[in-house]
Parts: sequence; structure tokens; C-alpha cells
Amino acid sequence: MAKQTDLDIPLTISSLQASYVQGTLTPLQLIKTTLTNLEHRGDDGIWTYTLPEDSLMQRAMTLMEMSESQRSQRPLWGIPFSIKDCIDVAGLPTSAACPDFVYEATRTNPAIQKLLDAGAILIGKTNLDQFATGLVGVRTGYTVPHNAFSKDYISGGSSSGAALSVAHGLVSFAIGTDTGGSGRVPAGYNNIVGLKPTRGLLSTRHMVAACRTLDCLSVFALTAADSQDVLQVAQGFDPENPYSRPAGMPPADLSSYQANQSFRFGVPRPDQREFFGNGDVKSRYQIAIDTLTKLGGICVEIDYAPFLDTNELLFSGPWVAERYASVGDFIDANPDAAFPVISEIIHNAKEITAATVFEGLYTLETLKRKIQPLWDSIDCLVVPTTGTTYRLDELAAEPLKLNTHMGYYTNFVNFLDLSAIAIPNGFQSNGIPTGITLIGSPYQEAYLVGLGDAFHRQQVNQLGATEFTFADLDKIHH
Amino acid sequence: MAKQTDLDIPLTISSLQASYVQGTLTPLQLIKTTLTNLEHRGDDGIWTYTLPEDSLMQRAMTLMEMSESQRSQRPLWGIPFSIKDCIDVAGLPTSAACPDFVYEATRTNPAIQKLLDAGAILIGKTNLDQFATGLVGVRTGYTVPHNAFSKDYISGGSSSGAALSVAHGLVSFAIGTDTGGSGRVPAGYNNIVGLKPTRGLLSTRHMVAACRTLDCLSVFALTAADSQDVLQVAQGFDPENPYSRPAGMPPADLSSYQANQSFRFGVPRPDQREFFGNGDVKSRYQIAIDTLTKLGGICVEIDYAPFLDTNELLFSGPWVAERYASVGDFIDANPDAAFPVISEIIHNAKEITAATVFEGLYTLETLKRKIQPLWDSIDCLVVPTTGTTYRLDELAAEPLKLNTHMGYYTNFVNFLDLSAIAIPNGFQSNGIPTGITLIGSPYQEAYLVGLGDAFHRQQVNQLGATEFTFADLDKIHH
Repeated sequence: MAKQTDLDIPLTISSLQASYVQGTLTPLQLIKTTLTNLEHRGDDGIWTYTLPEDSLMQRAMTLMEMSESQRSQRPLWGIPFSIKDCIDVAGLPTSAACPDFVYEATRTNPAIQKLLDAGAILIGKTNLDQFATGLVGVRTGYTVPHNAFSKDYISGGSSSGAALSVAHGLVSFAIGTDTGGSGRVPAGYNNIVGLKPTRGLLSTRHMVAACRTLDCLSVFALTAADSQDVLQVAQGFDPENPYSRPAGMPPADLSSYQANQSFRFGVPRPDQREFFGNGDVKSRYQIAIDTLTKLGGICVEIDYAPFLDTNELLFSGPWVAERYASVGDFIDANPDAAFPVISEIIHNAKEITAATVFEGLYTLETLKRKIQPLWDSIDCLVVPTTGTTYRLDELAAEPLKLNTHMGYYTNFVNFLDLSAIAIPNGFQSNGIPTGITLIGSPYQEAYLVGLGDAFHRQQVNQLGATEFTFADLDKIHH
Repeated sequence: MAKQTDLDIPLTISSLQASYVQGTLTPLQLIKTTLTNLEHRGDDGIWTYTLPEDSLMQRAMTLMEMSESQRSQRPLWGIPFSIKDCIDVAGLPTSAACPDFVYEATRTNPAIQKLLDAGAILIGKTNLDQFATGLVGVRTGYTVPHNAFSKDYISGGSSSGAALSVAHGLVSFAIGTDTGGSGRVPAGYNNIVGLKPTRGLLSTRHMVAACRTLDCLSVFALTAADSQDVLQVAQGFDPENPYSRPAGMPPADLSSYQANQSFRFGVPRPDQREFFGNGDVKSRYQIAIDTLTKLGGICVEIDYAPFLDTNELLFSGPWVAERYASVGDFIDANPDAAFPVISEIIHNAKEITAATVFEGLYTLETLKRKIQPLWDSIDCLVVPTTGTTYRLDELAAEPLKLNTHMGYYTNFVNFLDLSAIAIPNGFQSNGIPTGITLIGSPYQEAYLVGLGDAFHRQQVNQLGATEFTFADLDKIHH
């Protein structure tokens, strides 16, 4: 946990904005510090591409030359961010973590464009499990990243570099993707917030698709407040994307969150919880339930079986054929280019029949109907983000089985069209973070952010893997 | 057009109800007449199964033994109907028009159960294009039916027998199915009304599916009013069917329909209209546009291209794999049991890949988004139900091509989740009927019924192929 910057403030959006207003920091100074930090860290597996020094300096200067009025129209003026390297930015390479796949993008994803238009500074593109296929972070053609708290542990994925770039305080926020948990698992493993908005809120046009019917862009940040600020800018209907949906509700007012307001949160029945032998994560989850109860929550035990049945559809079911539809031609033509496990998963999808897809669609509709009434009895579902953590050597020994374990609490979310936020839940005795995920109906982002922020402040003090805490944030603002 | 019954009234619901109330007819007398008519007609290709005489007599007597209060709770008390023989009724055989496929059903489709509970009398099960695959009516393992107005012309399908049982005045209404036009094409060809409700309004549980994601039950009747009465009884949410949806809006009050109320109806651009060389149907369509204009309509020419692109998905696209998912195992195991054309269509679906299905889903979503804004500029779309009619010998010569022609104005409707009603539009010079179809957003049944009924009364006098007219109906009620 070495200090990453010589700035004396955490890189949260409001901290940076306060420093810019006070004149104690400029975007140019921020970029110079960032460049020093990146150089100092070397190839740590977080980045697949960082923007050249002159380009970053130029971006900072352009922002600084803006009038007060221009600045005030840009809610993310001077805020540094990263994007997962399966998302296109015109003129930059897109790799999907596969060096032989790299192409120079000609268009910019519309959600990213909104962030750039709002004055945010793109620092670079981040590493991932190739083609966003995996929840582990090790399936990359570039340097394998490791957990922000230990060289021996995996970072989680597929948005590995995105989560790490935030956890280490290199950027204020990161845009990742989340199909079956890729925006939540690495948040949980690295002590940060991972907001997985309702499908379609952030346009998925101009990116390398994993499963087009399920893919979401997701937001990583040190706090729920920051993830909400980013969502407000990046969301919006994209008429050219058939999976796009209109922007959601007004954001939550986090300053007015009422402790002890009553709410009902669902948890899996104790016999359906799975920690894969990890007593520490199990204890932390029980502590999370206690904290939520202190916040006014009524804990409701629910039947988790239909959620597990839904999970089965992702990698064991026909949806893997969407990955074939996306990158199958490349993998067929370049059999040795992709990570072997991924090549095999995607290649096998070729054999799935059309009738199997329709049978999968029928099963999904049946499960949706079975689960739907549950949302009348709970305001949100609360699960561990993952049931356990793994060392890099453990994962290497059983790559497929352990990857499946990591989706136990995440895979079903996009199938069922739910919104979710992963929130830090304190540390195991080995120093590796744990997390919980709050899950709600579609368009429940404001509710989840409000509750998630209240929980976060109760449960964990440290922000990501930085030297800063919630107390530091409060100091800045009072 | 021989008189079918020795009753002096048309078999519309309100006519029968008036006779029952006046005491000039009883259900038992009705059934005796029906039995005589069925015997007199012999095997005309309408029925695959009729209920035994004693069973029908018993049903009539059970109804007659009911108290006044019991009767008043049964809105279809004593009303005779038929159902397409791909829909299950417990204890009766289901054939899907394939003799080797026949099984005795153990459950009753929930929509049919509602009709029976409402006091309707099931007369029998009707012929169809095997496995509801076709729009022609000739693809059956039973006797091939012919058009109600000519022995030389096809009945249309796949709900061939259903439409004919109504057109000939053998029942008051018929339940058919409609995936790509099967509830509209035979209505148009036989001068009756075909209501294709919003997907999911009538439960499709317990039937032989064609395409489970698209299938609808549909209603055939002599008048739009009758089709609406049947819809009101048969609709309703079925929690055990994942494709079921809640019941719709209140029914239209047909007595208060305002002529000259303003509405906008879309029609395909003239260069996109297709009559396959049939000048009579073309003229009738122009007359329909004039009639709608006289009724207060403003005609809006629209781009029909995206609707045609959607049509392509049904038989040329991956959705045919749903037919394989439904009956593929039977066809594989019994290669000679099915009608050769159908066997081939369904068998070929085996080769379609999963990735092709997902690509089809993406295309469909894109087309949906392209078409969606159109509904802001029109209240309904009005198309010919079919562009032309065919003789049995013409169809035999080119079975696949001509079948495709018949879906030109029908295939897209369920893909785009629309509601529709086929309404008679007068006759060609060869005596064969023509029709138009009014198409609206989901849940627009009441609007379509209201406009459709007003149009019907303006355009055509004869009810189906019966000797009765709208004037006879008005006489009964005044």
C-alpha cells in the first residue's frame, strides 16, 4: 500500500473538484503526477495501453484553457479515468487482451464519448480476461495482474485492470463491463465499489461484445457517490443501439440518507450459501447482515435455488454462442492467438444448435416468472460478491472449476435484468478484501447507491488500496 | 352457399343469446341441428375430430339444468365453438393434423378451459396445416379442405378448419392459432373476422407449439363484436406459462363508435404493395382505403421495407428451430409420418447454429427499434390480409413459393409484438373473398375491434359463407 501520488488527497471526484476550485491543484499537475506514478509502477498488468505523455499534457492544457462557463458545463472536468480494453475509442487500439486481435478503433463508444465531453481525462485502457470471458483476471495475453493487496492473490476479472486502476488511486473511476459478474468480482477483491447499472443504461455500441443481449458497461470507483456521478453522465438513450434504454431515475441524495429507515433485504437460505470452505468470508457476510440490520433492515431468507438455476445458463448454456457470434471467426482463423481456455470455450459454442438456444430462452423465461414475485417481498437481495478468494497458483491448477465458483453470486443478475452494486465488506485474516453485492429490480440504481453508501461507511474505512479513508474525505468537505 | 341449419338465425353470439332468452331455441335443439348439419356435410376436411353425439347432448342438457343465476354467470352459455387441433383438451385426441402423431391430451389449455367454464359448447377439433406450419390449408394428413366459396380454391391456413367452421355457420366462433399469419390468412379467404390478440393474452400452455416465443391463440368469428366477446372470456394471466401476460383494456363499446372520428392509418408505399398480379385484390384494397377515409381516417404512406425484413426471419431465419425444438424428435423418429414439405422445413432447422439464432435476435431488435417511432405517427397499419388467392392446383405446383407470398402482409406481426384483426373486404370477380388487416401496438384490441367493426359494416354485408347478413343481425336486435 505504497502511497501512489504526491498529491495529499484521495482521487475521489469531489476531492479533486475541491482542489481545483481552491486552486491547490490543476489538471496539468494531476497528469504530471499520474505520469510519474505510471512510470514508477512499470508494467504491473493493469494497462494494455496508456495515452502518450504529450497527448495527456495537451488534454490537460485544453481543459485549463476553458472559460469558467465552459468548465461549469463539464461535470467531470479534470477527472482522470480508465476504460477496459474491449471498449472502442476512435484512434486508439482495442485489444480485448489478445495481442493478435488488436485493431485501431474508428469510433468511440457513446457512453465513453459522454464522459470525454463532460471533461474527464482518459488515462489509458485496462487489462481484462480475454474477450471478457472469465472472472479471474489471469486469462490475458499481456502481463497478468495481481490483487491490489497481495502479489499471491488474483485480481478477479474480467475487468481486472479497471478495478486495479481505481483501487491503487491511479484514476478516479474506471469503466469496465459486466456480463456475468465482471464489474463486481474485481471490485469485491480490491476493496472498491462496482456499480453494474440496469442493462442498456450505458450504450454498448462500439465495443467487443461478450454476450450482446446481456452486456453492460459498469463503473468502478472508490465510493458509491462517485459511481453515481459517473452513471449520471454516461447514461442515456442511444437510438442506434437496439439494446439501449432511456436514462433512469434522479440520483440519490446521499447527504440525506436516513439511518434506521426500514427496508427488507433478502439473503439466501443458510443451507444455500456457499463459501467454498472460506470461514473468513462467511463471518464477514454475517457481519454485513448485522450491519444492514442496524441500518434498519429486516433480513428475509429466500430460496436461492432459481438463481442458481439461472447461473447455469451462462457458461453451461447456449449463451456462450453469443461469444462465438462476436469473435468466433477470429478464433477459428487464429487458433493459437487466444488464451487456450477461452479458445476452447468459444470454439465449443460452435456445436450448440439453434433449438438449444430456444430451449434456453424458454428456461430463462420460466425462471424469470418464478423469481419475479420475490421482488414484492424484498427491496433488495444481498449476497457475498464472491464466496471465497483464490491464489494465482490455486487458480492455475483448476482454472475452469474455480472460475465457476466465482460466479455463484453474480452470473444470474443480467439474465434477470437486475441492477446491482458491489460494496466493500472488510478484510479476511489474510488481508484480502471481501465484498457484498446489493441487487435490485431494473432502474433501482439510486436506491442501491444510497443504501450501499450508508453500509460502506459503517463497514470499511480504507478507500481501495490507497492510504486514504472516509475520514479524509469528510475532512476535505468540512 | 347452402343453408347450413334449419335455425332461422345466424350463429352470432348475440343472436343465439336472444333466441335463448326468448325461448325460441334451447342448447339441445342447437346441438341436434348441429349434428344433422355435420352428418349432412360428411368429411369436408373441416374437422379432425367431433365430439360424440351423446357427449354433446349431455353437455347441452347439463347447461339447460342450470339455474338462472348459474346461467347469468356464464357469458357464453350455450354458444357452440371449435378449436384448432393443435390445442389440448383433456381426454380428447390432439393430432396437429398428423395421424401418426395423435396423442390423448391429459390437460386442457387454460384459455379453452375459461371458455368451457363460461358455458360454451365444444363441438370438435379442426383441421390445420400440420404442426401449424404453413398458410395454405392443404398440408394435412386428413382430408384437404377447400375455400368456403369454391371447391377449386384453397382455404388458407394454418387454421383452415377453424375458419371454415365459422364461415359455414357450424359454430359461433373458433379458436385457432397465429404465429406468422395462421389466424388471419384463412379469415381473409373465407369472409370472416380473425382477431390475433397481443402475444400472451391467451395462454399457450398445453398445445403443440409452433414457435413458443411467437405463438398466439386467435379467435375466428362472423363479426368483430363476437371476437371481442370471446377475447374477454379467454384472456387472463397464467402464472404457469412464462409467455403469458395480464388481460388487456376494457372492451370497445361498439354501439357508440363515432363515424368520422379522426384517425391516422398507415399503408405501405404504392411501390411496396404486392398483389402478385391480382388486379381484383389490388382494387379492393384501394376501395378499403377509400372506405377508411370516409370513416374519418387520414391515410399515411409508410416505408414497408423494415416489415419485409422482419418477415424474412420467420421461415428463412433461425426461428424455424423453435419448430424443431417442439416436434423435431417426432419427425426424426418418424421420417415418413409428416407432410413432406413440413418434414423438410423442420428437419433442416437441425443444422442452424446457436450463433445464428443470436444474430437473428440482434437483427430483430434492430428492426424493432427502426419501426418503433412509426407508431407515433399512425394509430394503426392497414394492409391487405393477403395479396392474392390461389387455386389448389396452383399451390400444388409451387408449394413453398406461393406459401411465402401469403405471408407478405402477416409474418412480421408477432415478431414486432403487435395486435391485429383481419376483416372482410369484399369479393373478387371470381367470387373469392378478400380481406384487410388492421394492425396496432400491443394491447390495442379494443381500438382495432371498434374500427374493424365500423369498416366491416360499411364494406361487406354477407356474414361468412352463410345466408345471413348484417341486416339480419340488426333485425334481431331491434
